[in-house]
Amino acid sequence: MRVEEKLGEMGLVLPAPPKVPQGVRLPFAWARVRGDRAYVSGHGPLGADGSLSGPFGKVGADVSPEEGYKAARMAALSVLSSLKRELGDLDRVSAWLIVHGLVNAAPDFGGTAGVMNGFSDLILELYGPEAGMHARTAPGVSTLPLNQSVFVSAEVEVRP
Amino acid sequence: MRVEEKLGEMGLVLPAPPKVPQGVRLPFAWARVRGDRAYVSGHGPLGADGSLSGPFGKVGADVSPEEGYKAARMAALSVLSSLKRELGDLDRVSAWLIVHGLVNAAPDFGGTAGVMNGFSDLILELYGPEAGMHARTAPGVSTLPLNQSVFVSAEVEVRP
Amino acid sequence: MRVEEKLGEMGLVLPAPPKVPQGVRLPFAWARVRGDRAYVSGHGPLGADGSLSGPFGKVGADVSPEEGYKAARMAALSVLSSLKRELGDLDRVSAWLIVHGLVNAAPDFGGTAGVMNGFSDLILELYGPEAGMHARTAPGVSTLPLNQSVFVSAEVEVRP
Repeated sequence: MRVEEKLGEMGLVLPAPPKVPQGVRLPFAWARVRGDRAYVSGHGPLGADGSLSGPFGKVGADVSPEEGYKAARMAALSVLSSLKRELGDLDRVSAWLIVHGLVNAAPDFGGTAGVMNGFSDLILELYGPEAGMHARTAPGVSTLPLNQSVFVSAEVEVRP
Repeated sequence: MRVEEKLGEMGLVLPAPPKVPQGVRLPFAWARVRGDRAYVSGHGPLGADGSLSGPFGKVGADVSPEEGYKAARMAALSVLSSLKRELGDLDRVSAWLIVHGLVNAAPDFGGTAGVMNGFSDLILELYGPEAGMHARTAPGVSTLPLNQSVFVSAEVEVRP
Repeated sequence: MRVEEKLGEMGLVLPAPPKVPQGVRLPFAWARVRGDRAYVSGHGPLGADGSLSGPFGKVGADVSPEEGYKAARMAALSVLSSLKRELGDLDRVSAWLIVHGLVNAAPDFGGTAGVMNGFSDLILELYGPEAGMHARTAPGVSTLPLNQSVFVSAEVEVRP
């Protein structure tokens, strides 16, 4: 339970499972574990109770790069929360493989990589360079579900 | 042949292989099978003869969310058609892993998740929750090949 | 060293490792190798010295489709350069699996598939159809890190 201890030391708390807003139906799994892989759906920032959290809108227009960075860091907690529910123990993640960090971005915003560092920095701090290092993409997309500002999907290696 | 029987019972027919429009060259595989994985290229809606089908344009502007839902359902049939050609039998898909549902979306359209339910609902109906459940992303993108409205890529586990 | 011989015969040179522009921090791996898989981060065109190269901006507006095709071909060299550093020998790539070709595209540009052929054509020429064939997506995105015009991520199978 090394990763969760670290989260505690850092004063970070994993959010409750995502609360789906009324009228929305999400017929998919937040994380799909199969053999030695877990495939993680797109996650945005959540409040402690699992409710959808801002910032909403486009980074580079409605949302500043600094707010975007924090949103990506919160999205990492959302991802970890889903992985914990599926895996029981976050230490079962033996290697982060690839992270797709999608930024709801204004068309002239070139700073999406800096925004997604909010995700990567936290994962590397929690898992260390050997397990935490990952390949990454960080495109700007034209919109995201429910107007979220960032949205992170991942593939990780898991041990039995 | 359980999945194909279900398709028949539902009155659904898989489209013919994609007909590439004149002047377009697509030097890639619609599905790439290797070991226990199949990687599926982005597929949009096809007509029964494999010709590119509408709706074209942006969901939330040119295309309604309901039309987008139907387009995503049609894209599922396109994906299944490619998988059948590669695998011989759709029952060889032992688990859907992750689905990337890309919506050609107006920048202020927040309903991309609802659109992609057209894909997820059909896969879950055909495969049931155990094999059919999948992780998913559903971003809005600024444009898609040939102005398609939706475009779905996937990774699935296959049995020998 | 068959692939590198071919590159030499074609007069193509792999760029030096990416030089990160001042003030930019990229806390992730350009390629993450684990078991029989390598996960490749998003790569754009690089100059011979590894510096970020144009064309910059949106294909279909600032950048022509032909320039986009060349940029995607250059991005293939960037990807190969990262794979060579991680794998030692490019012949260790036993199969290309899936390629995500993201095009920084004007919202009305429908030619993203043609742009990404610049990547696919070179990989198929170097690796031949059996190892080089791949599944592919080629969406248009609203923006890319540092305003690059194209950006390619991939998953490949590697031999020990």
